[in-house]
Amino acid sequence: MEENLKYLKDYLFNPSSVAVIGASEKQGSLGRAIMENLLAKYKGKIYAVNIRGDTVFGLPVYRSILDVPDNVDLAVIIIPAKFVPDVVDQCGKKGVKATVIISAGFKEIGESGAKLEEKTVEIARKYGIRILGPNCLGIYNTSSGLDLIFNPNDRQDKPPAGNVAFLSQSGALGAACLDYFANNQIGLSSFVSYGNAADIDESELVEYFGYDEKTKVISMYVEGLKDGRKFVNIAKKITSRKPIVILKAGKTQAGSRAAKSHTGALSGDIALYNAAFKQIGIIQAASMEDLFVKIKALSMQRPAKGNRVCILTNGGGAGVLATDATEHNGLVLASLQDETISQLKSVLPESASPYNPVDILGDAPTERYTNAFDILKKDPGIDAIVVIILPQSPAVKHDELVDELSKRISQCEKPVTVAVPGGRIAQYLIKRFIESKIPAFSSPEDAVLGIQALVEFGNIQKKLGGKNV
Amino acid sequence: MEENLKYLKDYLFNPSSVAVIGASEKQGSLGRAIMENLLAKYKGKIYAVNIRGDTVFGLPVYRSILDVPDNVDLAVIIIPAKFVPDVVDQCGKKGVKATVIISAGFKEIGESGAKLEEKTVEIARKYGIRILGPNCLGIYNTSSGLDLIFNPNDRQDKPPAGNVAFLSQSGALGAACLDYFANNQIGLSSFVSYGNAADIDESELVEYFGYDEKTKVISMYVEGLKDGRKFVNIAKKITSRKPIVILKAGKTQAGSRAAKSHTGALSGDIALYNAAFKQIGIIQAASMEDLFVKIKALSMQRPAKGNRVCILTNGGGAGVLATDATEHNGLVLASLQDETISQLKSVLPESASPYNPVDILGDAPTERYTNAFDILKKDPGIDAIVVIILPQSPAVKHDELVDELSKRISQCEKPVTVAVPGGRIAQYLIKRFIESKIPAFSSPEDAVLGIQALVEFGNIQKKLGGKNV
Repeated sequence: MEENLKYLKDYLFNPSSVAVIGASEKQGSLGRAIMENLLAKYKGKIYAVNIRGDTVFGLPVYRSILDVPDNVDLAVIIIPAKFVPDVVDQCGKKGVKATVIISAGFKEIGESGAKLEEKTVEIARKYGIRILGPNCLGIYNTSSGLDLIFNPNDRQDKPPAGNVAFLSQSGALGAACLDYFANNQIGLSSFVSYGNAADIDESELVEYFGYDEKTKVISMYVEGLKDGRKFVNIAKKITSRKPIVILKAGKTQAGSRAAKSHTGALSGDIALYNAAFKQIGIIQAASMEDLFVKIKALSMQRPAKGNRVCILTNGGGAGVLATDATEHNGLVLASLQDETISQLKSVLPESASPYNPVDILGDAPTERYTNAFDILKKDPGIDAIVVIILPQSPAVKHDELVDELSKRISQCEKPVTVAVPGGRIAQYLIKRFIESKIPAFSSPEDAVLGIQALVEFGNIQKKLGGKNV
Repeated sequence: MEENLKYLKDYLFNPSSVAVIGASEKQGSLGRAIMENLLAKYKGKIYAVNIRGDTVFGLPVYRSILDVPDNVDLAVIIIPAKFVPDVVDQCGKKGVKATVIISAGFKEIGESGAKLEEKTVEIARKYGIRILGPNCLGIYNTSSGLDLIFNPNDRQDKPPAGNVAFLSQSGALGAACLDYFANNQIGLSSFVSYGNAADIDESELVEYFGYDEKTKVISMYVEGLKDGRKFVNIAKKITSRKPIVILKAGKTQAGSRAAKSHTGALSGDIALYNAAFKQIGIIQAASMEDLFVKIKALSMQRPAKGNRVCILTNGGGAGVLATDATEHNGLVLASLQDETISQLKSVLPESASPYNPVDILGDAPTERYTNAFDILKKDPGIDAIVVIILPQSPAVKHDELVDELSKRISQCEKPVTVAVPGGRIAQYLIKRFIESKIPAFSSPEDAVLGIQALVEFGNIQKKLGGKNV
């Protein structure tokens, strides 16, 4: 790991001590929310700083960071923008290593803010302090317990530890994604809202998570890249080892104008983006839902070695929809080997279909699923499997089926996704599969889209494999 | 209403009396499940018929329909296929008006089954009996309480009464959709699984629901049409009055082959289908999720008069995504009138965006939403509004915001959809909006897709308005 990344690791994501500048007990204040989060989860030392002094949750409040008696690795700054340059200067004098500037009122508000931002960066550089932000939500890191996301706990859930890093140019949209991950059991290594990226930008963060051992999938919401060339040079060294999934907003003319008004991002010529992303092996998401589907699949399954998909279903209609989605996504319905077909015939009732999609019928009990799965997983002509369960059928023993399939899917060398369409019980089965790290979805089409992401990552590995770091 | 439809209304959907042929108390049997459903909900008279006699849930069991002492409007048949022709003959002698043949083992199993099916239809025609099925789940009708869906209640939820009719060629997929509707508060007038359509086919059902006053939206899962020309002639008289939304499976070559193996449907040349559907004003869904989005929007909102969309959001990123989706779906971002912009400026903070997407910022309280909405609803250059709420923001008072917006949206002449991205709280807000019949979705893109369906229906009305029945 290069020096700058080691620095981010030690002082930004896993600091030994954090000072909260703007700490407060005031109901509804950001300073209170962040203090509460840190006191509940953060493993290092916490120092409260506020010009008003007093105490916060029983801790002494220092009027200036310079008054803190010990070393401070990270300063979290949540004071009005105009005071930020001076406070960063004090951080420099104190020997603080990194800051997260949550405060807004910088480049995003226009020229005066841009000047304030430049000045702040200039001061920080003088001292060698790194800055995340300004105008951001900051960091949620599941290993160090650093949680700066100030939205109240009655409305902002936070995901468990896991292998997905999520980087967001937009704080509010990032928070909504965080909330989604939490409620859909998608585990995160880190969440980073990087705001204006005055110093640390998306490229450096991607490079960091490229090395981060806890991160298997790098995912991003991006309106515009701060430095496209830098991003390309960094990302292309990572994409064959770790998938990078990007939801690029501003992909249409109108969207591009809206992005410019939002983050000031020049979202650029989308054809250029698409070409560059394709060349360096970025996996793009078409929408929020699409992003979630691809993250889930890539986080929980291995890449596919080819694009030949087999569908196993207890409902013919759902099998047809999955077949349509297979072709629609540029995948191919696998041709089953003769031996596979004859083995399937030997374990399935006569009216079942031993071809692909393999339709084991609405009265299929667990055993019919497992028998068929055990046969399909050995067919070398199949690269990936989609299992569809219509759980409304009286024949499905829900927990038994989840247990038996989960065991097999976890040991399977081919990537597998699961679709469970329906309502309450379907959601329960999906939750249970996800607890076993099996990507389950509520529609056949989403399960196929998950496979598509795994096929795409497999193709990227094949194409770029030799050339990457 | 034509005579055949009046007949279906009186005897198939709202019979005064139902005989269950194959009634049983045996645990896990279809005969038991249907008896339980009818006893719980059905308002007419119920007769149990089973060759074994005895009693079922305290009711006498007649060994033959001929032994039932009163008139029987509808016979539900759940006995092995080979006995069905004789039983239908007895129904004829008894004067039964209509039958739902749930039993499988007919055309779908091959030539012998096809012959049995032909024979059954022949007998029925002799007596003037109408048949739904065979090989189907049957009917769930929320006004008469006729519920023949035999999946156990621990795994199959059923939606409340509402204005959506759902017709499914596939029983299992239909059941999964029914379960989805139930758990997403989408109300149904009727659900019909019509199976092999030996007699009553999808065209006649569409015609029926075209006249049904309780039905505002006709939705369908279809693999292939029994008689394409008949369908076109019927549907084209309905589409300008009521939207017909179809999820057509078998839209790819592989999917078409899979459909043939599933329902024996010749799913036809998809280009031909697309052309015909477009000409007669059918709204197509691209996937299960897409179908649910379009049904929700069409069921709860009026059609749009044009394609000019305004986006109102408390998060810039979500606004950009919605903007992309607007252009992607062939819609246009509305240009706000000068007066609208100056009014917005007068009620919004300086750093908000009074242009489209209207970004009222992350700290927007209820009042900022309502002020902006009240201004936008009057702009004649806007045809439809998408309201986005990122509910993670500390400024959002959830219930208050839902109440105030719901009131305004319900009275608004323009169609409106709502997006609430996130987790637990987002789902709560979505549920509350839907209780007020406001179509709310979990992503900006879905909210825009909902508007797209309303714009499409508006266009169909404009194009076909004068020419339809």
